[in-house]
Amino acid sequence: MQIKVNRQLPVPLAKQIYQAIVDRIQSELLEEGTRLPSVRALAKQIHVSFMTVVQAYDALEEDGYIIRIQGKGTFVRTKAADTTPKKELPKKESPFDWQLSVPDYLPRAQFSRYHQVSARYEFFSSTIDPGLLPNRYLEKEIQRILAEEPRILSTYSDVQGDLPLRQELTVYLRDKQIQVTPEEILITNGTQQGIDLVARTFVGPGDIVITEAPTYPAAIDVFRWRGATILPVPVDKDGMRVDMLAALCEKYKPKLIYTMPTFHNPTGTVMSIERRRQLLDIAYETQSIILEDDPWSEIYYENKPPSSLKSMDPLGHVIYLKGLSKILAPGCRIGVLVASGTIFHRLVAAKGNMDLGSPLLTQKAVLPLLYSERMRNHVKKLRIALQLRRDMMIELLAKHMPEGISWLTPRGGVNLWLSLPPHVDTEDFLMYASNYQLTFLPGAACYPIESKHHFLRLSFSFMNEPLLAEGVKELCRATAAFIEATVTYRKTPVV
Amino acid sequence: MQIKVNRQLPVPLAKQIYQAIVDRIQSELLEEGTRLPSVRALAKQIHVSFMTVVQAYDALEEDGYIIRIQGKGTFVRTKAADTTPKKELPKKESPFDWQLSVPDYLPRAQFSRYHQVSARYEFFSSTIDPGLLPNRYLEKEIQRILAEEPRILSTYSDVQGDLPLRQELTVYLRDKQIQVTPEEILITNGTQQGIDLVARTFVGPGDIVITEAPTYPAAIDVFRWRGATILPVPVDKDGMRVDMLAALCEKYKPKLIYTMPTFHNPTGTVMSIERRRQLLDIAYETQSIILEDDPWSEIYYENKPPSSLKSMDPLGHVIYLKGLSKILAPGCRIGVLVASGTIFHRLVAAKGNMDLGSPLLTQKAVLPLLYSERMRNHVKKLRIALQLRRDMMIELLAKHMPEGISWLTPRGGVNLWLSLPPHVDTEDFLMYASNYQLTFLPGAACYPIESKHHFLRLSFSFMNEPLLAEGVKELCRATAAFIEATVTYRKTPVV
Repeated sequence: MQIKVNRQLPVPLAKQIYQAIVDRIQSELLEEGTRLPSVRALAKQIHVSFMTVVQAYDALEEDGYIIRIQGKGTFVRTKAADTTPKKELPKKESPFDWQLSVPDYLPRAQFSRYHQVSARYEFFSSTIDPGLLPNRYLEKEIQRILAEEPRILSTYSDVQGDLPLRQELTVYLRDKQIQVTPEEILITNGTQQGIDLVARTFVGPGDIVITEAPTYPAAIDVFRWRGATILPVPVDKDGMRVDMLAALCEKYKPKLIYTMPTFHNPTGTVMSIERRRQLLDIAYETQSIILEDDPWSEIYYENKPPSSLKSMDPLGHVIYLKGLSKILAPGCRIGVLVASGTIFHRLVAAKGNMDLGSPLLTQKAVLPLLYSERMRNHVKKLRIALQLRRDMMIELLAKHMPEGISWLTPRGGVNLWLSLPPHVDTEDFLMYASNYQLTFLPGAACYPIESKHHFLRLSFSFMNEPLLAEGVKELCRATAAFIEATVTYRKTPVV
Repeated sequence: MQIKVNRQLPVPLAKQIYQAIVDRIQSELLEEGTRLPSVRALAKQIHVSFMTVVQAYDALEEDGYIIRIQGKGTFVRTKAADTTPKKELPKKESPFDWQLSVPDYLPRAQFSRYHQVSARYEFFSSTIDPGLLPNRYLEKEIQRILAEEPRILSTYSDVQGDLPLRQELTVYLRDKQIQVTPEEILITNGTQQGIDLVARTFVGPGDIVITEAPTYPAAIDVFRWRGATILPVPVDKDGMRVDMLAALCEKYKPKLIYTMPTFHNPTGTVMSIERRRQLLDIAYETQSIILEDDPWSEIYYENKPPSSLKSMDPLGHVIYLKGLSKILAPGCRIGVLVASGTIFHRLVAAKGNMDLGSPLLTQKAVLPLLYSERMRNHVKKLRIALQLRRDMMIELLAKHMPEGISWLTPRGGVNLWLSLPPHVDTEDFLMYASNYQLTFLPGAACYPIESKHHFLRLSFSFMNEPLLAEGVKELCRATAAFIEATVTYRKTPVV
């Protein structure tokens, strides 16, 4: 289509283009259905601005001469199209979805997808049975606080978190040998936001991040999102194989070491004191940051676990995350981040960018429960109740599981790591288990490296005792049946 | 230091290294205070593993032969140092802070830093006076809900947000001509998290992001953090200069266009319907995403503003953010994101990575107020109260401001954009204004390009009427005095 515009004329350029095209359509030089050049192409061709062509095309469309079809182009309108109102432009029915051509920076978000599955026997979520949480007490306290200070509802929290909550947390953390001031505490929307904050601030493309293998799936998602190179270090019964980490550090310099030394997720193991010391030495030597994730140290079933890495670190290499949501009030999503120096200040600034601070209401809601005596009693009861469930589960597994299945007895926390025979893929098993109304976390989710896995994680904290007993027996039946089915399948000769 | 190890000996290598160094210290071959090689260097030099040297150095330190000084190195221990217990290693007193050598990915977090300032006359924060918000009503409703369903406290919300809240929001949005299903709504921690979510998912290094100039400072922070190239487009009384955007698009292809078409922050202007249509055309033509930020469309003082961009977009190019925190309950931090198709699904996945979902308690807390009749009445009262404040402020400015000061009368929202004489730098003025117990947002914060600015933003929503009146008069006095002082200064001849 050759159009010429004349800049000497008093007629606006857009109007000239409009008229030139209308002339061509009316004289049938441009047939119905002919594709017009794109705005960009036409603007370039006739040396006018983008906006001029937009205006001309707008007017042509308004007057019914042309039609724009998203993902296809601009066409001379056919008679059939004439009757179609503008609003009826192809929407989702179009096989051309422009959105699919929009690249993103989200390479992996595996965990929250698994999260969507729900079932009668819920071994997936390491969430505590609401029946064990102090809902009634918190409800009364919230009512009291709101009656006294209704303006909590209309007041923003500090970006760093509500000061009275941070003050109370210094007392709570002192019990864990962590000596900090309120100025070194940041309140987050659960531990997940803490991991994300640290990653967005300190991890970028090509940075080396060390994780345990297996590890917490949603942490893998976050480090992948940041473009990190994730180097997994195996776990044994004493936690991360720090000797293997040391060997890795001869070749690589980690930026961040992510670890759950106490009741590791998913295996439930505890890092020995000796390894804790060595891990700190490695961080000092390589000038790296340790991100210590501690969701479960309160929930021990035998001995109290060793002190946190943070409490052994006078030099500020450890960023410590204490989840409180799970053991207090998941509906409030309160996490605690402890760090010092410029590392800490940079994290507070990042929290400002991220959401300008957590809601004040939820921070005020959990505060009354934190007062030490009450918290100690609550946690004590929780330990007893969860230990009963753990023991029951292990007894039932021992009784009903077929041969070749093994597990680690967790010394704390709410997860049990189960090993099926090596030929079993637990992602396939998860699909199969839906027939038994069962859900769990397949091992593959816990490894930064894609591959088949015969492990799975069972959380025993969400179901009440009768349901848990039923669920474990059902799981044993499903396991036996699935192994039988896959063995049979494998035995079938290939014809 | 030349050390040799013998792999044939039955003595462990770490022990051999330990003994070799002790021998040298005792024979004074290594003098007190001598710096030892780093673990990495020594390991390389004598061909042993990193861990072996760590073990040797650990033992040497334990036995008091050496001392490690963070940021300096490892030294043969002096007698003075001998008495220093290990815990007393130099901490913050050290002039060598290893943390300062840790690079980060946080290039700008300007807004939340300004946020820290507080003063008697608070023109900074575009937050609504808690006295105008329905705290007592919400308090009663929360008490009722918690009494009926205490398990809200121990239940996680869906990653996407509580379904009943999303359902109610479809009704609320229908009033704004936005037709969506609950499946196209995502609940965020305030609008800030919405901006951050979109940026982390769709904006990366070198991507072109269009913003208005001036614009909302915390959005600049987020786009800078993502490494975007920000191209600012000026605003006039009809909103973004879409013609200038079109001219830019002849050269650049934007990935994202961030806009506040309705009661733009900070200028309070409204984008005309014509420009809205043109903006959508540009987004369709360039296949870019529009991020429409709508904090204030409910708060209009004259005519109801035009429909949102989202309501004019059948093709899913607009991601719409509706802030509810400010007009309902800032202590709950509830924001709403509306989008469709794969763009939307990717944002939900990113929200999972970010924090696994917003707290359920705060979502349940704002729900009862949303029911339409009640919300309409609340918003109506809010409009009247805020219009009174706006009018009073403008009257006082007209009466008391010195010559050469001008402003735009905002047609909605809570901000007024003030222009001082061109030689005045409003960041300097902010410092000076602290003598008058005044705080406001200096114009420089609102531009992605660093430079001096003679604009500033005044929010008239936070102070009650008597305080606001006092504050505006004080601001006029401060302005006159500052202009006088800077003029005097400029008149002083340079000797």
